[in-house]
Amino acid sequence: MEPFALKRALDNVRSGAPLVHNITNYVTVNDCANALLAIGASPIMSDEPNDVVDIQTICGGLTLNIGTLNTRSVEGMFVAGARASELGHPIVLDPVGAGASALRTRTAGDLLDKLDVSVIRGNMSEVKALAGGASSTRGVDVCPDDAVIDDNLAASAAFARAFAAQTGAVVAITGAIDIVADGEHAYAIRNGSALMGRITGAGCMLSCLCTAYAVANPAALLDATVAAVAGMGLAGQIAQGRMSGYDGNGSFRTYVLDALYHLDGDALEAGAKVEQVA
Amino acid sequence: MEPFALKRALDNVRSGAPLVHNITNYVTVNDCANALLAIGASPIMSDEPNDVVDIQTICGGLTLNIGTLNTRSVEGMFVAGARASELGHPIVLDPVGAGASALRTRTAGDLLDKLDVSVIRGNMSEVKALAGGASSTRGVDVCPDDAVIDDNLAASAAFARAFAAQTGAVVAITGAIDIVADGEHAYAIRNGSALMGRITGAGCMLSCLCTAYAVANPAALLDATVAAVAGMGLAGQIAQGRMSGYDGNGSFRTYVLDALYHLDGDALEAGAKVEQVA
Amino acid sequence: MEPFALKRALDNVRSGAPLVHNITNYVTVNDCANALLAIGASPIMSDEPNDVVDIQTICGGLTLNIGTLNTRSVEGMFVAGARASELGHPIVLDPVGAGASALRTRTAGDLLDKLDVSVIRGNMSEVKALAGGASSTRGVDVCPDDAVIDDNLAASAAFARAFAAQTGAVVAITGAIDIVADGEHAYAIRNGSALMGRITGAGCMLSCLCTAYAVANPAALLDATVAAVAGMGLAGQIAQGRMSGYDGNGSFRTYVLDALYHLDGDALEAGAKVEQVA
Repeated sequence: MEPFALKRALDNVRSGAPLVHNITNYVTVNDCANALLAIGASPIMSDEPNDVVDIQTICGGLTLNIGTLNTRSVEGMFVAGARASELGHPIVLDPVGAGASALRTRTAGDLLDKLDVSVIRGNMSEVKALAGGASSTRGVDVCPDDAVIDDNLAASAAFARAFAAQTGAVVAITGAIDIVADGEHAYAIRNGSALMGRITGAGCMLSCLCTAYAVANPAALLDATVAAVAGMGLAGQIAQGRMSGYDGNGSFRTYVLDALYHLDGDALEAGAKVEQVA
Repeated sequence: MEPFALKRALDNVRSGAPLVHNITNYVTVNDCANALLAIGASPIMSDEPNDVVDIQTICGGLTLNIGTLNTRSVEGMFVAGARASELGHPIVLDPVGAGASALRTRTAGDLLDKLDVSVIRGNMSEVKALAGGASSTRGVDVCPDDAVIDDNLAASAAFARAFAAQTGAVVAITGAIDIVADGEHAYAIRNGSALMGRITGAGCMLSCLCTAYAVANPAALLDATVAAVAGMGLAGQIAQGRMSGYDGNGSFRTYVLDALYHLDGDALEAGAKVEQVA
Repeated sequence: MEPFALKRALDNVRSGAPLVHNITNYVTVNDCANALLAIGASPIMSDEPNDVVDIQTICGGLTLNIGTLNTRSVEGMFVAGARASELGHPIVLDPVGAGASALRTRTAGDLLDKLDVSVIRGNMSEVKALAGGASSTRGVDVCPDDAVIDDNLAASAAFARAFAAQTGAVVAITGAIDIVADGEHAYAIRNGSALMGRITGAGCMLSCLCTAYAVANPAALLDATVAAVAGMGLAGQIAQGRMSGYDGNGSFRTYVLDALYHLDGDALEAGAKVEQVA
């Protein structure tokens, strides 16, 4: 990775203020909007098939998150995705719960097949399910057997790189250790906090942030995604460092947004723990 | 109630980490998810009829909350509920606004009739409407005439016990004084804070917590529900104790989640104000 | 404006505790509910066409916000709106994203044409789009060219007054300087904080608050809307004054709710920066 690639990626988000169209679940949608605003992007939510073409047209990219998918919103995803592809806008796919239900696995697969997806962001169980391998997702959480740890890091990175090569997308697999890969290179990222598993929406927010980074850094998608992932992890660390006394996951959620709000390119460059693994 | 029954109920939630499937309203769904995470459970939301069977299959229980019901989500409730009943999973019904509209009263009644509901959690106006008695719900708030106070405590407890006997469900009626009853016993719980009426979602969160407690304590449903109700009330008290200066209902909402996050079995056992009334 | 008109308007909300029915977007709906609770009103959300007539019947007013409109919710808006008009209940229209998509512009226009709308609350781009003038909405944000500034204040006020005269509604255009007008008078309001653009929902919350103020002050709709707008701006200022250290938009969101919670008539009267411009 070039020097200052992460700083540049975030600086481009803050200076470009990209408009991001999100079709996402109703559980964490408010956090997604505030996370985008925190990093200087501007969110729009629209899932009605008759609305999404116009909305995508004025935006720079599209987040597709199947967390609470329904027949209408899935139709909206395909219509919006087709428009994004026409316009050359990046699409970020978050296959929430792929592997947990046939509908989710199939829908995520169809979106990946039929749209020009730029970034896939999920946990290892979800990404494995999407890749068609054996997977046993524990609901929307990663299956313990799938967790990326030092012992399986090289194999996990190879899987991510292979799946990236196959799909043409940057693949971001997040967990205790995060992996971000394109078809040629894979990075491990060791930022983050265990508390991020105790709030809903850390993954969903990150997927939306990936879209903002992708819009603002079209020629450096891999670096942009590493920056998004490391930045979210760093926000989690900063938030954890602020916890005291009676603070619990309610406060942590607020602190994550606050940390994203204050994160700048220099802090990201200084705090990111990124290593190339393949 | 046996000694340490409340402690055991919460300890079982934290050690069992139950997966809870929730079909709930879009107003408070984020708080519901974070409340479940706070007590060590894991939430999944899914209301699409084509998705809910698979999701319920991997979960341990089901919350049905009609707060923003629509024709699709109601269909999802029946499909998910049928699957839960097949699998012997507990179902918690939250009849939000029963009595406030014919659709809500009828839907709540149909869910109760056709599914094997384990716990009913609502305010007195909603539960009265569900029981078919005279009721005048004030929207989603309790009608002042229906509030449980010391003067009508015995009669309220008798009503709850009779409705529990009729339905086979544990009945939890929450308000300034909470009542939890099965067909044989009724308890009054005097935890809580008046500020809980100044945030949206206190009742919705509690219903989801009831599901987690029921999943983790299948053989002690009455104790589990008392523990859930007392624990939520205690979280409200702790949150209120933390209020200072400029804090208002925004901070209170955060503090309630924080308090749930830190609540353990010993604190619950020590702080619960539970008395048998019938 | 009469002396103490603003104080009276808020006092009437707190003493009257109006029930407000909201059909609003799923992004900011939780904040909308908590904002209404903060000022002493009681929120109900219902968008199912088969539910909204009963719900509107027991409420005092209706908020229609098209932020994440879909075919079902739009149908619910017309059904609820017809019932509100029958009952003489005020309707507040928030045309989120009008100008950003044909569906939004048309739907907002149809709602305005077919229903008896009491208050229109949007940014200048949205209101211009609704008025049929040239507009280029930047998603859900105001287009920079449309921003109300001192240089165009008189013209902006004249536009608001003319649109109010044409529609029979009070028109509230919010931004760095807010304008509230009926067909005869226009006021500029200089409360607020730039941070309000860094959270999602400031506008949505305000629209819901406008409904509560309108329900509680049926004979003084212009004053009531000025009070709602100035009160929201003042809450933003108070929230901004509380920001310190690591606080970002996550904390600011909480502080806005807290400030609304503590705002009383005297503080509103003292802090409101309102001037008549036409």
